[in-house]
Amino acid sequence: MLRFSIQRSARAVFRAGASSGALLPRSFAPSLTSAMRIPNSLQYSTKLPPKLTSESYPNIERLASFKKLAADDMTFFRSILSESEILLATEDEDLALFNEDWMRKYKGQSKVVLRPKKVEQVAQILKYCNEQKLAVVPQGGNTGLVGGSVPVFDEIVLSLTQLNKIREFDPVSGILKCDAGVILENADSFLAQHGYVFPLDLGAKGSCHVGGVVATNAGGLRLLRYGSLHGTVLGLEVVLPNGEILNSMNALRKDNTGYDLKQLFIGSEGTIGVITGVSILTPPRPKAINVSFLGVDSYEAVQKVFVQAKQELSEILSAFEFMDLNSQNLARKHLKDVPHPLEDEYPFYILIETSGSNKEHDDTKLEAFLEKAMEDGTVLDGVVAQDETELRNLWEWRESIPESSQAGGGVYKYDVSLPLKDLYSLVEAANEKLNEQGLLSETDAAKPVISAVGYGHVGDGNLHLNVAVREYTKDVEKALEPFVYEFISSKNGSISAEHGLGFQKRNYIGYSKNDQEIKMIKQLKSLYDPNAILNPYKYV
Amino acid sequence: MLRFSIQRSARAVFRAGASSGALLPRSFAPSLTSAMRIPNSLQYSTKLPPKLTSESYPNIERLASFKKLAADDMTFFRSILSESEILLATEDEDLALFNEDWMRKYKGQSKVVLRPKKVEQVAQILKYCNEQKLAVVPQGGNTGLVGGSVPVFDEIVLSLTQLNKIREFDPVSGILKCDAGVILENADSFLAQHGYVFPLDLGAKGSCHVGGVVATNAGGLRLLRYGSLHGTVLGLEVVLPNGEILNSMNALRKDNTGYDLKQLFIGSEGTIGVITGVSILTPPRPKAINVSFLGVDSYEAVQKVFVQAKQELSEILSAFEFMDLNSQNLARKHLKDVPHPLEDEYPFYILIETSGSNKEHDDTKLEAFLEKAMEDGTVLDGVVAQDETELRNLWEWRESIPESSQAGGGVYKYDVSLPLKDLYSLVEAANEKLNEQGLLSETDAAKPVISAVGYGHVGDGNLHLNVAVREYTKDVEKALEPFVYEFISSKNGSISAEHGLGFQKRNYIGYSKNDQEIKMIKQLKSLYDPNAILNPYKYV
Repeated sequence: MLRFSIQRSARAVFRAGASSGALLPRSFAPSLTSAMRIPNSLQYSTKLPPKLTSESYPNIERLASFKKLAADDMTFFRSILSESEILLATEDEDLALFNEDWMRKYKGQSKVVLRPKKVEQVAQILKYCNEQKLAVVPQGGNTGLVGGSVPVFDEIVLSLTQLNKIREFDPVSGILKCDAGVILENADSFLAQHGYVFPLDLGAKGSCHVGGVVATNAGGLRLLRYGSLHGTVLGLEVVLPNGEILNSMNALRKDNTGYDLKQLFIGSEGTIGVITGVSILTPPRPKAINVSFLGVDSYEAVQKVFVQAKQELSEILSAFEFMDLNSQNLARKHLKDVPHPLEDEYPFYILIETSGSNKEHDDTKLEAFLEKAMEDGTVLDGVVAQDETELRNLWEWRESIPESSQAGGGVYKYDVSLPLKDLYSLVEAANEKLNEQGLLSETDAAKPVISAVGYGHVGDGNLHLNVAVREYTKDVEKALEPFVYEFISSKNGSISAEHGLGFQKRNYIGYSKNDQEIKMIKQLKSLYDPNAILNPYKYV
Repeated sequence: MLRFSIQRSARAVFRAGASSGALLPRSFAPSLTSAMRIPNSLQYSTKLPPKLTSESYPNIERLASFKKLAADDMTFFRSILSESEILLATEDEDLALFNEDWMRKYKGQSKVVLRPKKVEQVAQILKYCNEQKLAVVPQGGNTGLVGGSVPVFDEIVLSLTQLNKIREFDPVSGILKCDAGVILENADSFLAQHGYVFPLDLGAKGSCHVGGVVATNAGGLRLLRYGSLHGTVLGLEVVLPNGEILNSMNALRKDNTGYDLKQLFIGSEGTIGVITGVSILTPPRPKAINVSFLGVDSYEAVQKVFVQAKQELSEILSAFEFMDLNSQNLARKHLKDVPHPLEDEYPFYILIETSGSNKEHDDTKLEAFLEKAMEDGTVLDGVVAQDETELRNLWEWRESIPESSQAGGGVYKYDVSLPLKDLYSLVEAANEKLNEQGLLSETDAAKPVISAVGYGHVGDGNLHLNVAVREYTKDVEKALEPFVYEFISSKNGSISAEHGLGFQKRNYIGYSKNDQEIKMIKQLKSLYDPNAILNPYKYV
């Protein structure tokens, strides 16, 4: 099904020493589509259902201060919600879709899912739960990677799925206002009709919600070009744990009147409020996109190419991704008959994307940059996509790594920030550690770990370390944690660049944040959620 | 002194109907310099010294809870600071430089200025003042426009002037770390040496501090291109009122571990903490800058040109400023013998700047855009700068408006955000109101108001309404306030786009923020500054 048709003639253009002709990409439709991305929440990362979180982590106890769901609670919920807005667990239906995370590492035991269609209902639900001390997990598309969006015990799931309307779009300013439950891809498709683009893109775009990416402060693939959500989100509508509604949806691009409250909720992972509406500034949709896939011989070369790309491609550079050989080997297995973009093997690969308003100019800039990089020997081989299909296929070799990593059974995912020079050293250290402990073998099925691979957004100092395993075992977890976190801390990195803390990293914030910061984070949690009903057992 | 040498031949290129030749700008050095910007804090907006704020606003009383500075306090300050770090008022020296704001609208009565050189000293000072309930005003370059950086009564001035070191710069990532007291222009000059640019530029760059612009969340001239400080600031070092130091200077580009605390201090105007260090992501310095100055016949045409510019110039568009005829008439008077860029008069003028990495490409894009805009009749006349001198001179006609506005005696400045379509209606409404009340005349020296002019950053929905006056009078203030704020509120705008609230707008936050927001803002103020010692009588 997946065709891959890079023309070898085009490929030759960027072979070291070859002359650069007029073989740059033909024009193609300006937008990426999302072939082979996660189509919906029903597709889990692995087919093995997870154990209950309470069994996997027996040292975590249900907080006694929380009330257990009772008949009178259901009477209240039924008084404000319709039939279709309440899902109840039955003997045949354990609400797995809402209790299990996408990676199938965690499983909660919630008996009820509330799916309100109005902000006022969200406010009523939270007010009631706060008064009754009923714990609540806000849930968007449930594509999170740290177990942050599923219950740990019997928390009520508050799903934003049915709060899913585009509210308003202004084609002069580019400001989009929408409900939190709008699926990211739907928001982007809507914007495409008006010549604009959502300033964030990520693999889960077909399932994840706009509100969810804001609550997670997702970074994704376009951060290099459009910056973080802290800069692009203009206003939020948030329901606080006590049911009060904080509304800054009318905010304009510039407003310096008072503390910028909305910022606290960007990346708060549903622990101090439930985001119900988002106002965001969207940039004009690029008219031309180029993608190039390169082979280099060291991580030093990756860094060198990055500096060159920033200088030469500057305002049109929209993605700079690197992948190690192991990650491509996993992808090769997963994508089976598809030929790799580059014939020979290289220790590192780079994907460069440019997005601009003038195809001819972008081609010239990319050509000049690649010529230079080939001439000085930094880049050893490379191809440039000639049409949109090729462009998608090149991206596929980057975007299929997460799925390829878990295809053998499961995957431990670490999403970290490190100073650029130290970025890859974590992958080397992890491999060494797993090897030392005799846990790693690509071929020996008796070993739990298949491969530890590294890839990510060099432009943002963001590394994804994926440890592909045949099964989740305590041995592997013990070898990796806190080792990985200690390593990151020793380099002044962040233990979570974009996935968040959730359940997985709740105990490890101390590796990224100092005591003063943690104290102030806890202080804010107590300020807004004194009964701690929102997303308990997580974050901090 | 100010030369102005736009070549009329170049000008002709963009006359409606004229053919577009090869007369685009020659190459020039890539950076703007700051000719004729405010050179230092000693140059006030007006030569008339202000009355004491306590006399101008007799209804505001000094808070009795604050201790008055006593001998034992000075003993403590002398124990931690050297001679050069303490300035005391004497009979001959009333510390006017620190007590008066740049606009000379406000004057405090502080008797002591502390100018520590180390963060630890700042912490010791605040801890002591908090315990003793001594009120403190943090002060950067004192270029603020809302009276936020000067004392109202006898508050101690905590000046960051001597905390002025560049700490670190990483030429691969572009991350700059510096003390809060580094002058913006110095930071930018330092970055220029490494091929980078500070992602913010404003008229006061020769005096204002990096910490000050962060505390104010200044927007300035490059926001359209590089986004707001909420996106570019990566970490801060902040001393809290109790003397605790919040340090996130090690933050990387991406870090999703806990609430993004630093965001609260961006735009907090020194009310909950004193910023002592800033870590900021800086972009590569553009290699090519073009500036074009255009004449159009209506505000509708301004909007139309803006949409066209976003589409055509897209990633290289770095400024889109508009000015009305009245603002240019004031500038004409002020710049005296300098000929205006455009021979004929137009109701509105537009300044467009592009910043890119390839001069030839940028020229082509700008040329195509201008050709189109001339052909369809939206733009009636225009010039493009041919070299850096001309470029600076074109900017001068935009940047000299603030000085021109106050040259006749003084100026009431309103810096607001409005939905784009309503942006100019405020200027029309203000003129009408001042006319109705018989306060306005360009020629009659008996009238207090000379002219009410509008200009600003269309790209950000940010209007500057300047009411040029012969003197500050209660009549004018009463005609304008709360009228201006009510008008803005009725259009869902912001009463302060970038200048902040400070003293001037302390009572007007309700026009931009709803009750829930104000409640939460006050809650945070109480949380971090329970004794309210930091920058009292201001903000909220």
